[in-house]
Amino acid sequence: MSIAARLKELGIELPAATAPVGAFVPYVRSGNLVFLSGHIAKRDGQPWAGQLGAQLAADEGRQAARAVAIDLLGTLQEAVGDLERVGRIVKLLVLVNSAPGFTAQPTVANGASELLSAVFGPKGAHARSALGAAQLPFGACVEIEMIVETI
Amino acid sequence: MSIAARLKELGIELPAATAPVGAFVPYVRSGNLVFLSGHIAKRDGQPWAGQLGAQLAADEGRQAARAVAIDLLGTLQEAVGDLERVGRIVKLLVLVNSAPGFTAQPTVANGASELLSAVFGPKGAHARSALGAAQLPFGACVEIEMIVETI
Amino acid sequence: MSIAARLKELGIELPAATAPVGAFVPYVRSGNLVFLSGHIAKRDGQPWAGQLGAQLAADEGRQAARAVAIDLLGTLQEAVGDLERVGRIVKLLVLVNSAPGFTAQPTVANGASELLSAVFGPKGAHARSALGAAQLPFGACVEIEMIVETI
Repeated sequence: MSIAARLKELGIELPAATAPVGAFVPYVRSGNLVFLSGHIAKRDGQPWAGQLGAQLAADEGRQAARAVAIDLLGTLQEAVGDLERVGRIVKLLVLVNSAPGFTAQPTVANGASELLSAVFGPKGAHARSALGAAQLPFGACVEIEMIVETI
Repeated sequence: MSIAARLKELGIELPAATAPVGAFVPYVRSGNLVFLSGHIAKRDGQPWAGQLGAQLAADEGRQAARAVAIDLLGTLQEAVGDLERVGRIVKLLVLVNSAPGFTAQPTVANGASELLSAVFGPKGAHARSALGAAQLPFGACVEIEMIVETI
Repeated sequence: MSIAARLKELGIELPAATAPVGAFVPYVRSGNLVFLSGHIAKRDGQPWAGQLGAQLAADEGRQAARAVAIDLLGTLQEAVGDLERVGRIVKLLVLVNSAPGFTAQPTVANGASELLSAVFGPKGAHARSALGAAQLPFGACVEIEMIVETI
């Protein structure tokens, strides 16, 4: 099945590439790698603020991470033109805005990882690091950066 | 001296590749780079929990970082088949679960860096960033991700 | 205009490559990528300590990030010999030592991003992630790692 068909089946419509706030760009291509900037979680177009373990529970964080992954795919589509050109999702760095006692960063990160597997199949199986940040830009609950290999 | 001989001399037996908890994989190869997922510190097969500057002192963190580096080499061996194929350890990102006043992240990270130098010699000299995380998956005291160049 | 001329116009004199404290090196080249270690902010040759949102305000952090970018360029010059060989600044990871309520990491990070744009023009437009760390090595207020593509 094509990536476009899978996205449709999942009911996902990709947004336009996220416009960065600041003096940088949403992605840079170098050789056959695309480095995507950290994308923060948004809801209704605004930063999805809150700390896991304080204002937000793990499952909300998981939903936020899934939303970030969809935004990353919007940026990736602009970067590569056609998502069929994705050879492999290489690595995610998943930053979780975490209250001192919150240790379920992997649960949160799975929201992004599972979405990428659902969309790309084996090509979506990536390396990953997840960590608890003391804070994130604009108070966002989740931020994710991604490296992708193109064909 | 071969890498295998050096490991033996150091009394290090490599574990099997770490199985990730979640929807991702322990490593991805892209061209001649291998991107290894963040590996958390373990003791007796369980997450080595605790925060530096609170439950754990810098030297314990250093031991934990050394243990993570050994686990990373177990994964790397599975990735490349034979550690003689390692051309260079490129970069470490060392995440240290840190109480607010703990600033000796480099001391902790040296536990991993020194092990890699002992095993690989000049090929083990890597770039590195170390930071104090607010929390880490499963409350682990240390997590490290690694990029490696293969021959 | 040459990079050297732009630096002169900006009144910037590059320092020697930063000597790392620990068992690692300031940079590693792999193919046409240069991976630079995390460089911490310094003032008068000492770690520029303090937490954003506590001891330091956003604009001080921005100045610190600019200072780190200049130190990174000193290391980069040693790595590539001549900054004209820089094809693209690929990615920054900007770590901001952040008190719990500080969410202006992008403002801080812009201090580095804007300096790179001023020096390299379009080649300086990079991908970026910024996050709030609980602490940083030696209590530094800012730490930045960088990936650069060479021609």
